[in-house]
Amino acid sequence: MTIRAAVVGSTGYTGFELVSLLRYHPQVELRVLTSQSYVGQPISQVFPALRGVCSLVCEGLNPESLVARADVIFVALPHKQAMEVVPGFILAGRKVVDLSADFRFRDAAVYEAWYQPHTAGDFLAEAVYGLPELHADEIRKARLVGNPGCYPTGVILAAAPLVRHGVVTLESIIADCKSGVSGAGRAATLTTHYCEANEGFRAYSVGEHRHTPEIEQELSALAGQPLRVVFTPHLVPMSRGILTTLYANLAREASDAEVRALYQEMYGGAPFVRILDKGQLPSTMYVRGTNYCDIGWRLEPRTGRIIVITAIDNLARGASSQAVCNMNLMCGFAEETGLNLRVWQP
Amino acid sequence: MTIRAAVVGSTGYTGFELVSLLRYHPQVELRVLTSQSYVGQPISQVFPALRGVCSLVCEGLNPESLVARADVIFVALPHKQAMEVVPGFILAGRKVVDLSADFRFRDAAVYEAWYQPHTAGDFLAEAVYGLPELHADEIRKARLVGNPGCYPTGVILAAAPLVRHGVVTLESIIADCKSGVSGAGRAATLTTHYCEANEGFRAYSVGEHRHTPEIEQELSALAGQPLRVVFTPHLVPMSRGILTTLYANLAREASDAEVRALYQEMYGGAPFVRILDKGQLPSTMYVRGTNYCDIGWRLEPRTGRIIVITAIDNLARGASSQAVCNMNLMCGFAEETGLNLRVWQP
Amino acid sequence: MTIRAAVVGSTGYTGFELVSLLRYHPQVELRVLTSQSYVGQPISQVFPALRGVCSLVCEGLNPESLVARADVIFVALPHKQAMEVVPGFILAGRKVVDLSADFRFRDAAVYEAWYQPHTAGDFLAEAVYGLPELHADEIRKARLVGNPGCYPTGVILAAAPLVRHGVVTLESIIADCKSGVSGAGRAATLTTHYCEANEGFRAYSVGEHRHTPEIEQELSALAGQPLRVVFTPHLVPMSRGILTTLYANLAREASDAEVRALYQEMYGGAPFVRILDKGQLPSTMYVRGTNYCDIGWRLEPRTGRIIVITAIDNLARGASSQAVCNMNLMCGFAEETGLNLRVWQP
Amino acid sequence: MTIRAAVVGSTGYTGFELVSLLRYHPQVELRVLTSQSYVGQPISQVFPALRGVCSLVCEGLNPESLVARADVIFVALPHKQAMEVVPGFILAGRKVVDLSADFRFRDAAVYEAWYQPHTAGDFLAEAVYGLPELHADEIRKARLVGNPGCYPTGVILAAAPLVRHGVVTLESIIADCKSGVSGAGRAATLTTHYCEANEGFRAYSVGEHRHTPEIEQELSALAGQPLRVVFTPHLVPMSRGILTTLYANLAREASDAEVRALYQEMYGGAPFVRILDKGQLPSTMYVRGTNYCDIGWRLEPRTGRIIVITAIDNLARGASSQAVCNMNLMCGFAEETGLNLRVWQP
Repeated sequence: MTIRAAVVGSTGYTGFELVSLLRYHPQVELRVLTSQSYVGQPISQVFPALRGVCSLVCEGLNPESLVARADVIFVALPHKQAMEVVPGFILAGRKVVDLSADFRFRDAAVYEAWYQPHTAGDFLAEAVYGLPELHADEIRKARLVGNPGCYPTGVILAAAPLVRHGVVTLESIIADCKSGVSGAGRAATLTTHYCEANEGFRAYSVGEHRHTPEIEQELSALAGQPLRVVFTPHLVPMSRGILTTLYANLAREASDAEVRALYQEMYGGAPFVRILDKGQLPSTMYVRGTNYCDIGWRLEPRTGRIIVITAIDNLARGASSQAVCNMNLMCGFAEETGLNLRVWQP
Repeated sequence: MTIRAAVVGSTGYTGFELVSLLRYHPQVELRVLTSQSYVGQPISQVFPALRGVCSLVCEGLNPESLVARADVIFVALPHKQAMEVVPGFILAGRKVVDLSADFRFRDAAVYEAWYQPHTAGDFLAEAVYGLPELHADEIRKARLVGNPGCYPTGVILAAAPLVRHGVVTLESIIADCKSGVSGAGRAATLTTHYCEANEGFRAYSVGEHRHTPEIEQELSALAGQPLRVVFTPHLVPMSRGILTTLYANLAREASDAEVRALYQEMYGGAPFVRILDKGQLPSTMYVRGTNYCDIGWRLEPRTGRIIVITAIDNLARGASSQAVCNMNLMCGFAEETGLNLRVWQP
Repeated sequence: MTIRAAVVGSTGYTGFELVSLLRYHPQVELRVLTSQSYVGQPISQVFPALRGVCSLVCEGLNPESLVARADVIFVALPHKQAMEVVPGFILAGRKVVDLSADFRFRDAAVYEAWYQPHTAGDFLAEAVYGLPELHADEIRKARLVGNPGCYPTGVILAAAPLVRHGVVTLESIIADCKSGVSGAGRAATLTTHYCEANEGFRAYSVGEHRHTPEIEQELSALAGQPLRVVFTPHLVPMSRGILTTLYANLAREASDAEVRALYQEMYGGAPFVRILDKGQLPSTMYVRGTNYCDIGWRLEPRTGRIIVITAIDNLARGASSQAVCNMNLMCGFAEETGLNLRVWQP
Repeated sequence: MTIRAAVVGSTGYTGFELVSLLRYHPQVELRVLTSQSYVGQPISQVFPALRGVCSLVCEGLNPESLVARADVIFVALPHKQAMEVVPGFILAGRKVVDLSADFRFRDAAVYEAWYQPHTAGDFLAEAVYGLPELHADEIRKARLVGNPGCYPTGVILAAAPLVRHGVVTLESIIADCKSGVSGAGRAATLTTHYCEANEGFRAYSVGEHRHTPEIEQELSALAGQPLRVVFTPHLVPMSRGILTTLYANLAREASDAEVRALYQEMYGGAPFVRILDKGQLPSTMYVRGTNYCDIGWRLEPRTGRIIVITAIDNLARGASSQAVCNMNLMCGFAEETGLNLRVWQP
């Protein structure tokens, strides 16, 4: 079976990533690409890497025409713009994976506290948070998936087994996260200027990054009670990758074997989580360009802490390959379809 | 049809690249990996990116055992070591793609002038220089292919149509080449130290790099007479990629359309050469991780010169994906099999 | 007044940094450089940047000859080697700034628990921990200064006012630190290989880095009671710089103005600490090549935490320029002498 | 003697570089900074590295007020804007170092062919091309210096002795140049986006870069006849530095010693040219942050060529430190004043 796919907002980095992945997906025919800035231009002119790979031309967003030509629609628009078009796609009977923040929250009030008024709140109840390791069954039945943020993907996967099983005290979680520059998008800004990022490691949005409530929503659900996390993002002079270093206080004594068993229980069957052996630690390099999330940890009896480290590719697992994975589940394909991506080192 | 493959010398960067490509090749079953330094270790321990991807364990090189388990053997050893083992593989009836310099030269004397005495000179006559755009027919029939060097691949593809058709004067060719650090291999040296390469762009081996005679052999054959090139390699603070800037004096007036026609004639049917539109120029980024060679040029009537620029990934087109392409041809598979690799930007 | 200086172990990165700084120090005449690997070679051959800047030739370490020609001796040897030579220099009446860990600890037992047996324990009592913001008065009178480790410099300066004034709970301190690759030294290893570090952000030595007890020693002294910290170092794909993100639980309510007053009180007179305005955050770029430590913070009432961020140059403030600053104090020079170094961006 | 200096256009990278250098220049008092975009903002807010270093506030450009407060004016405006203000400064009796292209050309027609109509052509006759190694005597007497472009500085210094002495054939000169990203300025563009430059080595403006006529002007003057050069700029994924690889055909046999003597004759007394020993080659790292130009070469008898390589820091020797050097000469200071800048590795 082959399905027809569209990417709405194809000329940012996550849009490009979707095109590059869907192009070789064995059960997808990529049919429509939309753009605001590049209407009428071949996508291979916007991204020369696609020359000879994808011959589609960027078109303006015409919802009627689009739903007529696509079974699954990936929406890679900025938040706010996404919620303006997604309802129409759903009502037209299409499946949607939305990569913005607009459909990640169960509670519109949380969204509105951190973003802006929500104009498609009716769709929040049915939207599924697209982290397959937590919600695969719901994703399979969903027609609308809110694809997770890049940072939340790495943080939630790090903390989930510990929080679900009460191994750590709930108010002690600190997520110190480090992202490559592509996380800031393709817009040309002083922040993304080569000379400002190179040799310039720094933190940003300390205590106020919008991925915070997303992390808290999912971990609170796992804990069965509300919790808060400290979340600090940093900008790393590299193009891709997020490393998360998560700190938490142990609620009780726990052996390394016991911790391993909890991660194994939760992720043992997941094709895209790799639990590292004792003594190993993740690196953004090892997951580069793939849908993997690598997980390692250290128990520190000296201080009663556990330190969990995860690595993902922010554009792949943190956005586009996870979106393709969600599509696979929604369409009844095997989870790995089109995602056995070659690994890199270097 | 599935063939069984072995990689001899699997723990350098080109070895890793072969493993990562062959692992998902639809007509290959990767069976044997050898190593000198890591015997007994899982390859996924040497290269953590391969965790969950390849479960093979590195073994010492036992030629008899190896030929019993592999139909095609990729030899990714340093030169000199390669020629010690390749003859045995050939005589045992195996197909061999050798990534060292040992079987790239038609004339043992040239090899010996730049490298050392050749101990397997009898095999040079049948060895085919594995640049598919020039030698596809011979590669299809070969049992031994000398896989091109990384720099020569980019230089020869840049110059071939111009040299064959006498568009440029033969003694005027200058190849100014720039390579990412992975070209220096995985050995830990001061040259490859992060702090010595980062922000430290420089030339090396000026006038004495061993890839010079390889370039000259192939271009001389195209010209029908011996020629010499100036070849200057540089080290770029990046991991992968080679950009070649080739200068030559025009032997006669030539229009842009005429030059395009020559490139088109030679590469129009080649799946892995992309001839850029007028006004476009290659970047190492656009070919990252793929087997593509991108080609662009500028005619400069002011000075009577043509400037041709090519970009390749040094580990992929400059080594391992080209080796897989050669295997495809040798085994009767379609040239692109297993090489429709996702593109990157960034 | 001009003093004569020697650098013992001049061919590592901190040795080079000392040479490059001392060379233009207005009150220093650099007289002797020693090396193990490069005896007889001009330092400008080891470090081509020094061509025309420093004409000294590396010599083997001959203590007698050395003390005859130098008033102040900088020891940039690995730990263990340092304690073998420092006592002799002191007994010969020379002033010593030791950049190894050998004279940073007041308690030999702590050193021995994390390093190895101490063979010059008699000198620990007089050795001063060379962090000028904490110990300037003692440094001025010292003949032996143990120059702080790179990470401890950034962590201690971040935490000191909070710990001294009981603003944070003592067992809640977590220091998540990120260092450029030069922190690993100039030795060629797989870790420092360009292709292994580039695009490969990762943590290392989690829970077991030897800078931990050094941080704890100084913060415990400020707290007036023993405390423990969680300290996690990471490797950033850049050459220089350390960013420290320090987390702690507030022991009581504290306003931004109150916190600012504490930092101001402790560092207001320090020429090399820059307390950032509200809303600003440090970057490793802004302190590049200088002796500055930039400090910013955020109070997070949501979680009852304070997050303090400091940036230093690991080779300068984290090693060599701090050593020069210590020498200035020991010799009665103004603290800034020779350290008004030009700033960089980029 | 202390002079008062102003920087017009202080918030680009060369402006910053001027501020950072002039701030510690022993014979300069930096008095006025102008900006278009940041009027009213402290320069230390625009460039946080300057915090505590420079307390000046950016002002709009008011020529009358400016000439009343400055003896020397550095103009770091884009071309065209520079020629609108420079004449006024000169007529008011001020000395001017202009970093734009507006006063680099002796012939207005050349300027107009590559740039636009020249509106201050009367000042071209007296303006001196500010390359001290060629024009020190005129610079000393000048009131207006046209500070060289970054690429021309490296190319002209590479070629000058060879061209002056007829060692190479005049029409054979090819300059293959590689620059760090800061050469593109601080404006946020797709070209300067971290993710587009990182791992993306490429050529640009092939055959049409505006630095071409500047190189040709100076080399033609040295040759005593008009000559043309091929000049190809490339963008390197690093922040700073230009490496020039210059190719030329030998006009006659020349020994290494003879070539060395020519470079020695021309640059032997120049404090900021370092002629490397045989076997050594320049790297951008070794000149980082300094006014040095390092020069090395290889004779290649095989092909009858000489290959000369130079390295400079594009923002320092290619712009701001060279401007300060010119000011030193114009004001009668020693050439090195304020320019004994610390060297870097890494």
